[in-house]
Amino acid sequence: MAGGDAVTGDLDDESYARAALTYLAEPADRRLSELIRVHGAPRTLDAIRSGRLPDAGRAMPRAAMQRAMERWRVRLGELPTPDDVIGFRRSGIRLIRPGDPEWPGQLADLGDEQPYALWLRGNADLRFSCLRAVAIVGSRAASAYGSYVAAEFAASVAARGWAVVSGGAYGVDASAHQGALGADGVTVAVLACGVDVAYPAAHTELLGAIAAQGVIVSEWPPGRPVSRLRFLVRNRVIAALATGTLVVEAGERSGALNTARHARDLGRRLMAVPGPVTSDISAGCHRIIRDWQGMLVTSAVDVVEHLSPVGEPQALLPAAGLAALAESAPATPQATQRRPASRRLARPAIDRDDLDLESAQVLDAMPGRGAMGTARIAQRAGLAPGTVVGCLGGLASAGFIERCEGGWRLRRA
Amino acid sequence: MAGGDAVTGDLDDESYARAALTYLAEPADRRLSELIRVHGAPRTLDAIRSGRLPDAGRAMPRAAMQRAMERWRVRLGELPTPDDVIGFRRSGIRLIRPGDPEWPGQLADLGDEQPYALWLRGNADLRFSCLRAVAIVGSRAASAYGSYVAAEFAASVAARGWAVVSGGAYGVDASAHQGALGADGVTVAVLACGVDVAYPAAHTELLGAIAAQGVIVSEWPPGRPVSRLRFLVRNRVIAALATGTLVVEAGERSGALNTARHARDLGRRLMAVPGPVTSDISAGCHRIIRDWQGMLVTSAVDVVEHLSPVGEPQALLPAAGLAALAESAPATPQATQRRPASRRLARPAIDRDDLDLESAQVLDAMPGRGAMGTARIAQRAGLAPGTVVGCLGGLASAGFIERCEGGWRLRRA
Repeated sequence: MAGGDAVTGDLDDESYARAALTYLAEPADRRLSELIRVHGAPRTLDAIRSGRLPDAGRAMPRAAMQRAMERWRVRLGELPTPDDVIGFRRSGIRLIRPGDPEWPGQLADLGDEQPYALWLRGNADLRFSCLRAVAIVGSRAASAYGSYVAAEFAASVAARGWAVVSGGAYGVDASAHQGALGADGVTVAVLACGVDVAYPAAHTELLGAIAAQGVIVSEWPPGRPVSRLRFLVRNRVIAALATGTLVVEAGERSGALNTARHARDLGRRLMAVPGPVTSDISAGCHRIIRDWQGMLVTSAVDVVEHLSPVGEPQALLPAAGLAALAESAPATPQATQRRPASRRLARPAIDRDDLDLESAQVLDAMPGRGAMGTARIAQRAGLAPGTVVGCLGGLASAGFIERCEGGWRLRRA
Repeated sequence: MAGGDAVTGDLDDESYARAALTYLAEPADRRLSELIRVHGAPRTLDAIRSGRLPDAGRAMPRAAMQRAMERWRVRLGELPTPDDVIGFRRSGIRLIRPGDPEWPGQLADLGDEQPYALWLRGNADLRFSCLRAVAIVGSRAASAYGSYVAAEFAASVAARGWAVVSGGAYGVDASAHQGALGADGVTVAVLACGVDVAYPAAHTELLGAIAAQGVIVSEWPPGRPVSRLRFLVRNRVIAALATGTLVVEAGERSGALNTARHARDLGRRLMAVPGPVTSDISAGCHRIIRDWQGMLVTSAVDVVEHLSPVGEPQALLPAAGLAALAESAPATPQATQRRPASRRLARPAIDRDDLDLESAQVLDAMPGRGAMGTARIAQRAGLAPGTVVGCLGGLASAGFIERCEGGWRLRRA
């Protein structure tokens, strides 16, 4: 089976091979990345299946590669068929890979630790949502203060058209997702298990709401459980997807500091919320500010200002702030994805013709003047409200529409 | 009456003239400073008395100078005689002026806003105490958190041999003084009224304790009441006396931000304690960290580290920290006073021969090995315990002795 674009159903060889590889290898396996780089995903999958190491061409240590091969082959029995992968779509689970329209280009910043593919569940378009995205992360054992601040900041940045990325965990993560959802914003949960796994179990309902209004993301295939290591590996994706990372509350040994370190190493903006020096759970935030040159932020306006290009008047009253954001959508997706701090022009982030079908329907359903509520827009578009909510968030992130008192309205050209 | 060193009792002309000028002019009056610079204090006093403006020699606008002259002459009736000034000593109030042994040389950093003279009340030697001093300031309406942190940090830096400078006000100031006193440390209260004025009245007892164990400082003569402007003018002296200024809790419009600005403008280290972003009273601290490049500190160890020269191992356990401090006394008073961040050598800040008589007696009374309590030291020195407490703090600041479990002990050479 040579590489190529033979289509199985409507799943091409490349997509199928990458889907299969997420079953065999843990993410960020540099040996696998190197094989994929040299041979392509389909030939790499074939090699693992046959157990015959291809000629890597480069200086890869044979013995180490052989050990990796043995590791990958352990799970060969779990490999899905192409029809299995296509079948997931019926349960709302889709696979994206580099080159797909929904693939967020900024993940390339991860280099040879870029995900082989991503499994998604939810109504929002991932690339679309992450054109302007803030990661809000922190301690699982958040205090009342941390939970309040996470929800408040998330709601506020979401209302300004920024997606909120987090990890779906207890504490700060949950409050951040809830805050964004409460503001009818888009939120992205990057899990350390399959997108269909309810972990933690108490978050079944929250994850359902995220899928309805945002999107759930994982590097692991459906059904795969969490592990301690997976949380850490996952963190780099949270950091890479977002324009900047905000740590709300984190102890000195919190996993949120790991996410913060990834954000810093990726050249993303790093921010932290201060707290009482008498609270151990703010110690990590203080370390970020003092030792890692993280920005001390005290409000969502600070966050949006810090993530927006210099010269844009963001620090206005909330209403005016929204208007200002409307003027500042990025010129191209690339500009936002790769260079969050670069100058953006006053038009939508992507071309209207590049919208997916449902988003285009929702945009067509928007009134030419004035505002309209979500239910009415759904009715006019002929789409389910849950679908419309996801589309609206994406359209707002991309700069086509904005929230206002009466619901949503077109942004002025 | 020409300038000179004619002595009246044991009050020289220069000291008397400067004492008198503190009655006539508000501090930081640049026209008066210019006259003193050109003509000396005694001739300037004569000129004000006679109402005849001396030839300034420099480009001073005549009309403005004339108006100033009229302003100063308003209070001529309040002028004390030299005997009055000497008489204050009987009530424990002394006057110091530039050139006196107790004058803190770092005040020269204030340039033409340097105090003409300072009125003092208390047992500690001011120059001595301020060889290593931290200003701890903040809101009068401190929260329980702010009060706790101020007292805790003050006690901790005081136990490490640093004097605590503050303004004697309610809230953070009071907690800072109390913390230092509780640790048997030296504390300096810089007031915006006469050193004998109990303001606020509820602090009568606190001010008494400060005088017993530290020193009260004012630019205004005895009996002079506070005014709104005087608080602001006073703040520059707090900032100038201390090696660095720590703001514990301060709203956006707090006077503590004024002190912080002076500290920054004087090139002193500026530090702030973060707090909850939901507390308005921490907003000033967050501004200092974010916009003024103030150092975020979370413990007294942070403070001492930040104020100590690079390369000194201060961040040790408390006991080891004290030992490290013992190695790091400045080489000369000048080095500490003018250049707080310069490299210091491992011996006391001043020469043993330059100690005042009482401090020398106290030092002589110290046991050669081991520790001794304050009461026993007082007994051996033949001095009142209150006097001894002040001397001990100064000797610790200067690097001769250090606190330990049993009381005080000589520092290892």
